[in-house]
Amino acid sequence: MDLGLPSVLADPALPARVRIHEVGARDGLQNESSLVPVEVKAEFITRLAEAGLRTVEATSFVHPKWVPQLADAEQLLPRLSGLRERYEGLRLPVLVPNERGLDRALAHGATEIAVFASATETFAQRNLNRSVDEVLEMFRPVVERATGAGVPVRGYLSMCFGDPWEGPVALEQVVTAGLRLIELGCTELSLGDTIGVATPGQVAALLDGFDRAGVPVGQLAVHFHDTYGQALANTLAALRCGVTVVDSSAGGLGGCPYAKSATGNLATEDLVWMLHGLGIETGVDLRRLAATSAWMARQLGRPSPSRAVQALTGP
Amino acid sequence: MDLGLPSVLADPALPARVRIHEVGARDGLQNESSLVPVEVKAEFITRLAEAGLRTVEATSFVHPKWVPQLADAEQLLPRLSGLRERYEGLRLPVLVPNERGLDRALAHGATEIAVFASATETFAQRNLNRSVDEVLEMFRPVVERATGAGVPVRGYLSMCFGDPWEGPVALEQVVTAGLRLIELGCTELSLGDTIGVATPGQVAALLDGFDRAGVPVGQLAVHFHDTYGQALANTLAALRCGVTVVDSSAGGLGGCPYAKSATGNLATEDLVWMLHGLGIETGVDLRRLAATSAWMARQLGRPSPSRAVQALTGP
Repeated sequence: MDLGLPSVLADPALPARVRIHEVGARDGLQNESSLVPVEVKAEFITRLAEAGLRTVEATSFVHPKWVPQLADAEQLLPRLSGLRERYEGLRLPVLVPNERGLDRALAHGATEIAVFASATETFAQRNLNRSVDEVLEMFRPVVERATGAGVPVRGYLSMCFGDPWEGPVALEQVVTAGLRLIELGCTELSLGDTIGVATPGQVAALLDGFDRAGVPVGQLAVHFHDTYGQALANTLAALRCGVTVVDSSAGGLGGCPYAKSATGNLATEDLVWMLHGLGIETGVDLRRLAATSAWMARQLGRPSPSRAVQALTGP
Repeated sequence: MDLGLPSVLADPALPARVRIHEVGARDGLQNESSLVPVEVKAEFITRLAEAGLRTVEATSFVHPKWVPQLADAEQLLPRLSGLRERYEGLRLPVLVPNERGLDRALAHGATEIAVFASATETFAQRNLNRSVDEVLEMFRPVVERATGAGVPVRGYLSMCFGDPWEGPVALEQVVTAGLRLIELGCTELSLGDTIGVATPGQVAALLDGFDRAGVPVGQLAVHFHDTYGQALANTLAALRCGVTVVDSSAGGLGGCPYAKSATGNLATEDLVWMLHGLGIETGVDLRRLAATSAWMARQLGRPSPSRAVQALTGP
C-alpha cells in the first residue's frame, strides 16, 4: 500500500507548512550512551539534509568534560563545509554554553547558534551551577556578540511545564524567563517539556501566556519529549495555536526505550507521519529519513524507539 | 514530584468524563505470542477493576483453533463471577464470532457481547473468509438473539482508515458498514484504525461522516493503534469531535515494541495521563494501573511498550 492515506485538512487553524528543527545529531546523540565516530556524525547529518530536513542542529560546543559524546565538535564542523551549498536553505545551528563556546563555534564556521536556559531554579543550578538570572546574564554577551557577527541565536527554555525536583512550573515563571531570552536578542524561543509531563491543555495555556505577553507565535518553537507518550498530541495542540516550528529527533534519538527516565525526544518520523497526514508540508522524504534512522540505530547497536521507524523499516 | 501538572481545561469542546473500554485482556492477549494461564487472566482483570476501570473486555468465544490464546474463555468467566458485585458498574463484555460463540458466552454468564466486522472486503475475506455483507448477515441473528436476551451488543468495525491490502479506505464505505451494524441493533460502534495509519484530520472527517449520516456521537467509540505513534493525537482529535468512549489496552498489550508490524493498541496509561492532564475524569488510579501492567509484562517476560508504564514503573 501507499505510505499513508489521502491527507485531509480538517482544521483551517492548522498551518500549511511546518519547519522541523531536527535535534537528533545534538540533543539526541548527547543523550546516547554510545560514542559515535565523527565520520558517522557527518554522514548522519548529510543524510538528514538529503532526506529534506533544512534545519539540522549539528553539535554542541559545551566543554567535552560535560558532554563527551559531542567532544568532536571542532572536527565535525569542517566535515560539514559545503553542505549548505549543496542543500539550498540548509541551516546548521550549534549549541554554545558560554562565550568560550561561542569563540570556538565562530572559529569553526558556525553561522547560527543556540543557547540553553532553564525556566526553573533547581534545574539551572543542577545543570549549570547558576541561578536562572545568572544563566541569562551569562548569555547576554554571547547573544550580543553573535548577533553583532550576523549569527542568529535560538534560545532553548527547558522545564517549561514540570521539573523533576520542583514539580509543576508556574506559567508566569516560564513566560518571564522566555521574555528575558527574547529581550537578550534570541530570534527564536524553543519551549521544552524536558521531562515529558505536559498534556495538550497545558501547552495551549502556555502558548496563550506568551501571546498575552506580546510574543508573536512565529517566534516560538515547541520541543516535546515522549516520556509519557504525549509528545505528538502536544504538538497537535501547539499547531492549533499557530506554532509552525517543531523540534524533533530523527528516530527518536536520545531516548532509551526501556530506561526508567526515558526522556526520549519526539521522533521526527512520527511527527512527519502526522504532518503529512494532515496535509502539512515539511519537505521531508519520510522513507529516506526512516532509512537514515534505521542506519543510525544500527550504528548505536539498538533499535530505534520511533514507532514509525519500526513500522517502516522493521526491527 | 506529583504525578502530573495541575490540569488545564483549555478547550470547552472536550468532555468532562471519558469511559475507557479496556481491551487488554482480549484484544491485547489475543495478539501476544505467550499463552497466559487462566488464573493470571482472572487476576489481571480483577486488578484492572481494582484500578478503577469499569468496562473490561474479558475474552473471546472465538474457536480455540483460531485464537489459542483465549481458548480458556469457558474457564475464565466463572472465575470472574462476583466481580461485578464487588465493583459497582463493572461491565465485562466478551467477543463472540457467531451464534455458536453466543451460545457459549450466554451459557457461561456473559451479560454483554461484542461482534467484530470489517469495513473492507479483503480483510473480511482474510479474517473471516466471507464478504463484508456475509459477515454482517452472519451477525444478524447473533445481535437479535443477544438483544432479545437483554444482552447489549457492541460492534467493532476494523480497517476504518487504511487496509494493508487495499490501501486507503473510502469514508463512505466505512459509514455504510457502520450504519449496517447499528441497524442490526448494536448499541455502540467502535471505529478501529487497525493498522494505525490514520492522522487527526482523517479521524475528524470520519466522525463528521457519521454525524452527517445521523449517528449520535454518543454511540461511537474510537480504537486506535500506535503503529506509527499516532494513537494519542488521534484520540485528542476524536475527543474534540465529541467522542467520550475510547478503547485502549493496559500497558499497550498486544503490540510487540520491536515487531515489523507493531500493531500495538493505544496504551491505557498513556491515554489516562493525557485525559487527567486535560482535566477529564476517568475513575482510573493511574499508579495502580501501571503497576498492574508492569506485573503483566513480567508474566509475559518482556517490557511494556507503554511510555507511561516505563516512566512510572521503570524497566
